[in-house]
Amino acid sequence: MTKPPPASAERAAPLARRLFAEFLGTGLLVAVVVGSGIAAQQLSNDVGLQLLENSTATVFGLAVLILMLGPVSGAHFNPVVSLADWFVGRRTGSGLSLSDVGAYSIAQCVGGVGGALLADAMFSVGVHVSTKHRASGGHLLGEVVATAGLIVLIFALARTHRGLLAAPAVGAYIGAAYWFTSSTSFANPAVTIGRMFSDTFAGIAPASVAGFIAMQLVGLIVAIVIVLILYPDAGAEADDVVVPHAHTQHSGHAEAAEATQRP
Amino acid sequence: MTKPPPASAERAAPLARRLFAEFLGTGLLVAVVVGSGIAAQQLSNDVGLQLLENSTATVFGLAVLILMLGPVSGAHFNPVVSLADWFVGRRTGSGLSLSDVGAYSIAQCVGGVGGALLADAMFSVGVHVSTKHRASGGHLLGEVVATAGLIVLIFALARTHRGLLAAPAVGAYIGAAYWFTSSTSFANPAVTIGRMFSDTFAGIAPASVAGFIAMQLVGLIVAIVIVLILYPDAGAEADDVVVPHAHTQHSGHAEAAEATQRP
Amino acid sequence: MTKPPPASAERAAPLARRLFAEFLGTGLLVAVVVGSGIAAQQLSNDVGLQLLENSTATVFGLAVLILMLGPVSGAHFNPVVSLADWFVGRRTGSGLSLSDVGAYSIAQCVGGVGGALLADAMFSVGVHVSTKHRASGGHLLGEVVATAGLIVLIFALARTHRGLLAAPAVGAYIGAAYWFTSSTSFANPAVTIGRMFSDTFAGIAPASVAGFIAMQLVGLIVAIVIVLILYPDAGAEADDVVVPHAHTQHSGHAEAAEATQRP
Amino acid sequence: MTKPPPASAERAAPLARRLFAEFLGTGLLVAVVVGSGIAAQQLSNDVGLQLLENSTATVFGLAVLILMLGPVSGAHFNPVVSLADWFVGRRTGSGLSLSDVGAYSIAQCVGGVGGALLADAMFSVGVHVSTKHRASGGHLLGEVVATAGLIVLIFALARTHRGLLAAPAVGAYIGAAYWFTSSTSFANPAVTIGRMFSDTFAGIAPASVAGFIAMQLVGLIVAIVIVLILYPDAGAEADDVVVPHAHTQHSGHAEAAEATQRP
Repeated sequence: MTKPPPASAERAAPLARRLFAEFLGTGLLVAVVVGSGIAAQQLSNDVGLQLLENSTATVFGLAVLILMLGPVSGAHFNPVVSLADWFVGRRTGSGLSLSDVGAYSIAQCVGGVGGALLADAMFSVGVHVSTKHRASGGHLLGEVVATAGLIVLIFALARTHRGLLAAPAVGAYIGAAYWFTSSTSFANPAVTIGRMFSDTFAGIAPASVAGFIAMQLVGLIVAIVIVLILYPDAGAEADDVVVPHAHTQHSGHAEAAEATQRP
Repeated sequence: MTKPPPASAERAAPLARRLFAEFLGTGLLVAVVVGSGIAAQQLSNDVGLQLLENSTATVFGLAVLILMLGPVSGAHFNPVVSLADWFVGRRTGSGLSLSDVGAYSIAQCVGGVGGALLADAMFSVGVHVSTKHRASGGHLLGEVVATAGLIVLIFALARTHRGLLAAPAVGAYIGAAYWFTSSTSFANPAVTIGRMFSDTFAGIAPASVAGFIAMQLVGLIVAIVIVLILYPDAGAEADDVVVPHAHTQHSGHAEAAEATQRP
Repeated sequence: MTKPPPASAERAAPLARRLFAEFLGTGLLVAVVVGSGIAAQQLSNDVGLQLLENSTATVFGLAVLILMLGPVSGAHFNPVVSLADWFVGRRTGSGLSLSDVGAYSIAQCVGGVGGALLADAMFSVGVHVSTKHRASGGHLLGEVVATAGLIVLIFALARTHRGLLAAPAVGAYIGAAYWFTSSTSFANPAVTIGRMFSDTFAGIAPASVAGFIAMQLVGLIVAIVIVLILYPDAGAEADDVVVPHAHTQHSGHAEAAEATQRP
Repeated sequence: MTKPPPASAERAAPLARRLFAEFLGTGLLVAVVVGSGIAAQQLSNDVGLQLLENSTATVFGLAVLILMLGPVSGAHFNPVVSLADWFVGRRTGSGLSLSDVGAYSIAQCVGGVGGALLADAMFSVGVHVSTKHRASGGHLLGEVVATAGLIVLIFALARTHRGLLAAPAVGAYIGAAYWFTSSTSFANPAVTIGRMFSDTFAGIAPASVAGFIAMQLVGLIVAIVIVLILYPDAGAEADDVVVPHAHTQHSGHAEAAEATQRP
């Protein structure tokens, strides 16, 4: 990273504040997923209806959290997104540095665990580690598809200057992916780790976690290949667009989130 | 309040008209919550399905009421929001005055009660005080979280000049909070008081009201701390932005609502 | 109507084309309401779930029809809206003429009946007149509230230059009103007449129709009073705004629909 | 096709990349439809609830896929849309050529079959040809209505310069059409062919396919007549508008998708 930082770097929020936003956002995201899962399980008998309640709440909650925290940290809430952000921006120095990716990931994972504990406390459910095994072959393929689709969507929006739409689009994507992937679309290592700490409808047994995260990383690789095929020449252009109005990190995803503050 | 009012103050709607809008909007909001709760309870057997019907109707209704009345009064419909509006704008004279907060709150509470009575009349349900006790420990924590999230969202939008999105974003927030908080997210003292007057699915027993409102005020304090961490330097900036195009009150929330009239 | 027509009147679509759009739009709206009602009744056992399926389909369908036909005719699809359009614009000559209101209303009612017959044909349901009696006291109050809310929303959007939002806002309004009014919100004489011709979940017995339409007219009067209180000085302003970019009728509602074609 | 190509044609993505986008998008669309159908059938008992889960996931998924791939290929995902694109643009040379329509259609059909196989794999469901017969008289009428409505919507948006709204509008349209047409709105030959390869809730028996596709072509003809009545003079105008900012194909539908990248 010998290149000087881009001119607008001065306007990025300090790292501590960005890490707080990632911690808070990932925590609330997991609280939404787990909390609404507990409520659904307590109130409905039909398992499909429980999942519909769970996915509807998550669509709304995720869109709102991206609106709320995007201008501060880029609203990644997901180590795979932060990693993609570094990879795409690594040559122009416009993405997260690898050490920032590490810091972001830690904040996200701590937030994810905290969110599960918050949901357990709100619903007066004791904290137990999940016993819900999920790592079948079909579910693992589901995680590859779910993660790849998420990353392609984020970078397609960023590279075509439609970051304004990130909040509703990512929310809608998860609303579809809950249903069309057999794994109900975790697609996020921090959320996967957090959801270990809730022995409910929304939990995941520790023995399934490593397989899920491995498949999420495979999905990341698939996504980067697809993005490079679909939008081969958009990399530099996207970066140029980010610089003039950036408040935070100068990356594909940060652009998407930031653009939402320019109506 | 020794500072002169900002130049655009002349364009604000008269207080009486703004109070009418707050009365009407809070009343219709409670009519939506209670009315759809009664319909759901009459038509569905599964309690989770009842809540899904109730929350879906509220998402739509709240977003529409913010669109309909935001340009007149700022579409607070909530004493906690009005109080936050005063607190954030108190140094620049751009928020509601404390006496206006009192007037807003009274209009909101009277509207809330009226809305419950209207719903009872539409469904030919006699007016009875609710017997539904809700103030358990988990539910009280739920109200803190629900209120804090609402206030952080509103001020994050206002301070990043994305008030255009207030109507769908606040609607979506409530759609998530109905489910992920154990209390189904009252998050509003006027609505809490109104919902005492309906002995249905959507009611709340008087004995639970004080606890709920106390926790909503705690949530307000939590929210202000989080806003100041996430957006520490945006206060003055937001006020500057409000002045040129303000029709009503010059405050964080009013800005959010007003911006929606500038497509 | 001795005033000359406004300059932009030349750009309005010919009356015949507008009447075709009103016929088509009202017909498809009733086909959506009745068709999704039949499907829901055939597929689900829980009556609340049937209504949720019915209301969700209507939210989507109504929003889409306003997008599709608004630029041609203003997308009224409702004699009460056309009547309000005449009343508000009568002094400036910018609204529909009374004879146009009559022509619009006939096209809407014929379309409404046609839409019910189309739904009956698609679902291979014989055409029978409905036997579903709905005109209880609570339901009549529900129709007043439902219609008043619809009209206030449309004119609040038009008078604050946010017509861009008419399609999603009117769709969302109906999504709430299906649930919070006891009558499931007909709020439209043409739709009420059309729904006589389907002896299904979504039908209405002829004996209930006159009462429903009378209450819709009461709702119209309530709405006009509320609009004049909330936005007393916006009449002329709204008309000024309409003229420069009008393609069709120059009225509050037409503006709302038209603005959607200027992104 | 003796006219020179419009100036902006140079900016269109190469055909191979556009065909990859059509393959990928149609594949993921069928994966969403079939995958969410399998999940719904496995998790819910009520058939209406299954369809609600299926239609909700499709609304979200289709809107997201149009956002993701529209800038590359126009996001047709449907041979009928590609055919309409050729027909409308054939005189100005601004639409797809007939040979491109053929290539698009093949990519779409191959994608559709691939998507069904992907869904079957994710849910560990063996690949069987569907045994679900659907071609009754009412269902065939339903396909005419469903396809006509889809095409009218797309061209109404394109011809009134509101292509920005194509993703949510087309998603919402399908959300209504799942319910108000008796056929659950296939409205797409490539999707119809793909859905043969899943013997589940969402499948269609081969014997019903020819009838469905024939009715979709009838719907296309109906749609073109309606578009020419409603927007008779907009053809040339729409083309003029497309040229200056086109990245891909210069057609009505491509415009709709592309406009979404200009927030």
